[in-house]
Amino acid sequence: MAKAQAYAQKAAQAAKVLATLSTAQKNQVLKAMAQKLRQQHQPILKANETDMANGRDKGLSEAMLDRLLLTGPRIDAMADAIDFIAGLEDPVGKLRPVETRPNGLRIEKMRIPLGVVCMIYEARPNVTADAGALCLKSGNGVILRGGREALQSSLAIAAVLQQALVENGVPAEAITVVDDPDRELLLALLKQTDHIDLVIPRGGEGLIRFVTEQSRIPVIQHFKGVCHLYVDKDADLDKAFDILINGKTQRTGVCNALEGLLVHQDVAPAFLPRVAKAFADKGVRVHGDPASCVYFDKAEPMGDDDYGQEYLALEIAVRQVADFEGAIAHIDRFGSQHTEVIVTENAQAAADFQRRVDAAVVMANASSRFSDGGELGLGAEIGISTSKLHAYGPMGLEALTTEKFVVTGVGQVRE
Amino acid sequence: MAKAQAYAQKAAQAAKVLATLSTAQKNQVLKAMAQKLRQQHQPILKANETDMANGRDKGLSEAMLDRLLLTGPRIDAMADAIDFIAGLEDPVGKLRPVETRPNGLRIEKMRIPLGVVCMIYEARPNVTADAGALCLKSGNGVILRGGREALQSSLAIAAVLQQALVENGVPAEAITVVDDPDRELLLALLKQTDHIDLVIPRGGEGLIRFVTEQSRIPVIQHFKGVCHLYVDKDADLDKAFDILINGKTQRTGVCNALEGLLVHQDVAPAFLPRVAKAFADKGVRVHGDPASCVYFDKAEPMGDDDYGQEYLALEIAVRQVADFEGAIAHIDRFGSQHTEVIVTENAQAAADFQRRVDAAVVMANASSRFSDGGELGLGAEIGISTSKLHAYGPMGLEALTTEKFVVTGVGQVRE
Repeated sequence: MAKAQAYAQKAAQAAKVLATLSTAQKNQVLKAMAQKLRQQHQPILKANETDMANGRDKGLSEAMLDRLLLTGPRIDAMADAIDFIAGLEDPVGKLRPVETRPNGLRIEKMRIPLGVVCMIYEARPNVTADAGALCLKSGNGVILRGGREALQSSLAIAAVLQQALVENGVPAEAITVVDDPDRELLLALLKQTDHIDLVIPRGGEGLIRFVTEQSRIPVIQHFKGVCHLYVDKDADLDKAFDILINGKTQRTGVCNALEGLLVHQDVAPAFLPRVAKAFADKGVRVHGDPASCVYFDKAEPMGDDDYGQEYLALEIAVRQVADFEGAIAHIDRFGSQHTEVIVTENAQAAADFQRRVDAAVVMANASSRFSDGGELGLGAEIGISTSKLHAYGPMGLEALTTEKFVVTGVGQVRE
Repeated sequence: MAKAQAYAQKAAQAAKVLATLSTAQKNQVLKAMAQKLRQQHQPILKANETDMANGRDKGLSEAMLDRLLLTGPRIDAMADAIDFIAGLEDPVGKLRPVETRPNGLRIEKMRIPLGVVCMIYEARPNVTADAGALCLKSGNGVILRGGREALQSSLAIAAVLQQALVENGVPAEAITVVDDPDRELLLALLKQTDHIDLVIPRGGEGLIRFVTEQSRIPVIQHFKGVCHLYVDKDADLDKAFDILINGKTQRTGVCNALEGLLVHQDVAPAFLPRVAKAFADKGVRVHGDPASCVYFDKAEPMGDDDYGQEYLALEIAVRQVADFEGAIAHIDRFGSQHTEVIVTENAQAAADFQRRVDAAVVMANASSRFSDGGELGLGAEIGISTSKLHAYGPMGLEALTTEKFVVTGVGQVRE
């Protein structure tokens, strides 16, 4: 489709310009973007009113409408996020020594941008600013294909960001918003292998499966977060309690919330009664194996094959395991390779768990809620990968780059 | 298709066992493989005779038949390569510190295998042993889908390798040879996203395009090598000459051979007459722009849009450029993102070239022929990526792994 190709080609041309900018130049553009967002609330708020009115007409849920809503403080928060990204370390251009070969060739690797990233997301207008800034900082062009619901807001935000681009000599297409939420156009974009390097879908499992199935471009997959807490026989039960309550109740609709509790049978009698009281107080609904259900007033019994659900609510599956191996086997079968946690005072058990569990983030004695880019020190997050190619886990600026080999000789030839 | 799923599932189960092996255990298996290959020439040679006879009946070219042919020394060379891989550093399990967060959380990253790799290749039976050993060392299961021509040889080699696996308690399916070269089965394998993590095609452009188009699993792409040598105005012309002759004539049918020569117009009068003489002596056919053609007896004139061909023969395109920017622009348009070389004594020009040129390997004052895994210090090479996701350039053992986050706390929860 000619329109998709035009979007992709122009973004790729703009990306070539971005790849040549210095860190100082990129930060100057980012600071200009933040400043303009703070100064130009009106056009953005006006566009958002249109989206909100359409959303109400369409009967969007209150939660959806709240995600869609922009206010002065929310726009300022986007500007703050862009200033924060300007302050992050720039991965591009970093040269790291690898080795000097016996023939004297010096081998190094240099970080470079990927090229063009295509973000596909639903009704969150702030993704436009966040992803635009992260891609700019990492030297990548970005094509933003948001949902129909937030389209006017996204276009208005992008128009402001593009002013900052153009005033600093960067083509506006470095941050491209697809102005047509047509499905055929999306499908055509997902075939632009010559111009788009990476696709990052953000949204529900249906969106991600659709994009993965249709794309000919590599896709970062993040299907779901079914995170477990395993309370080992050598656990400090106070720590386990705090980590459990934090992981399940601090925020529920997020992928790093706990969805499963595994308890070593030796500590269940000491641990679960306290858990039962707290869950009753906080209104956490419990599903469990028969041995665990006895500790809860209203637990619903669970079959051995029924685990692995992502509740995204005040709801959890509880199971006792006979030993450490039982916990490993449960996670191996029902985990989603997102985040898994052990609580134990036994350093060897912690290390074994961290080594053996196959998940993007494996923790000992800390809340699963720390499993995001900001909390892990990446500064900001463009997405989370639960597949292993290119990136595994929260993705920051570095995950938007790759490395090339840089080889320096004095005239060597191969024998 | 049930057969493809069975192959993939069994390989994935075996990969789980591989992921738990220590470096010493993996090296023991590799050494047993090498020893058994040296001891069991007969069944392999016998199977190879069948493939060779079939190949002759089918009228395979002499070059193809030579690639297919196994001899005692060739089998011993495979064994040597496996011993060499046993001696390489094991990337799996390596823990590198990232940072300690202000809240005391310790963040590290640990290298882990990818899971299952599917190699798709043509008539080179030695790929069976090489890829099998590299995947084993990096803790990955491998599914080897070679061409029909080498099938009996591959199965015989794999049977020997599998003896070593099984005698050391590793499931034979850790190295799976697809015993049926059926195209439908291949297509079904390329859809096994739940069990196969990476597809590496090795062969001609047609094979790679087919696999890329059909696969739902990430594919390492390596389409072609159109490598250029740019002789800068500040070049040492002796070095440039040696690097040119080495790059074009040492071996021609390889992707790191030179296919294009760019010469700064200021040094063309001093450089090209010498090149013309050497090319005439060595029988190198020349295509060129009008300004360059005058230096050659029988050069064929080239249109401005005709560059970028991969000759894989004693044949080269020669073009003069007005300046450094002209060389960058030519490579940007006609290069294949494989390997690009500048010869210059000007350190700033070398650094600018290395920074600005978008290729997996960018060299100053060294032959493009060094662009392979062994010569760049990777030990051995499983493939070369000319796309940027996951790996860019020659891929060694590390490119067959990824990193997970390892987080260690003392009970921290999120506010």
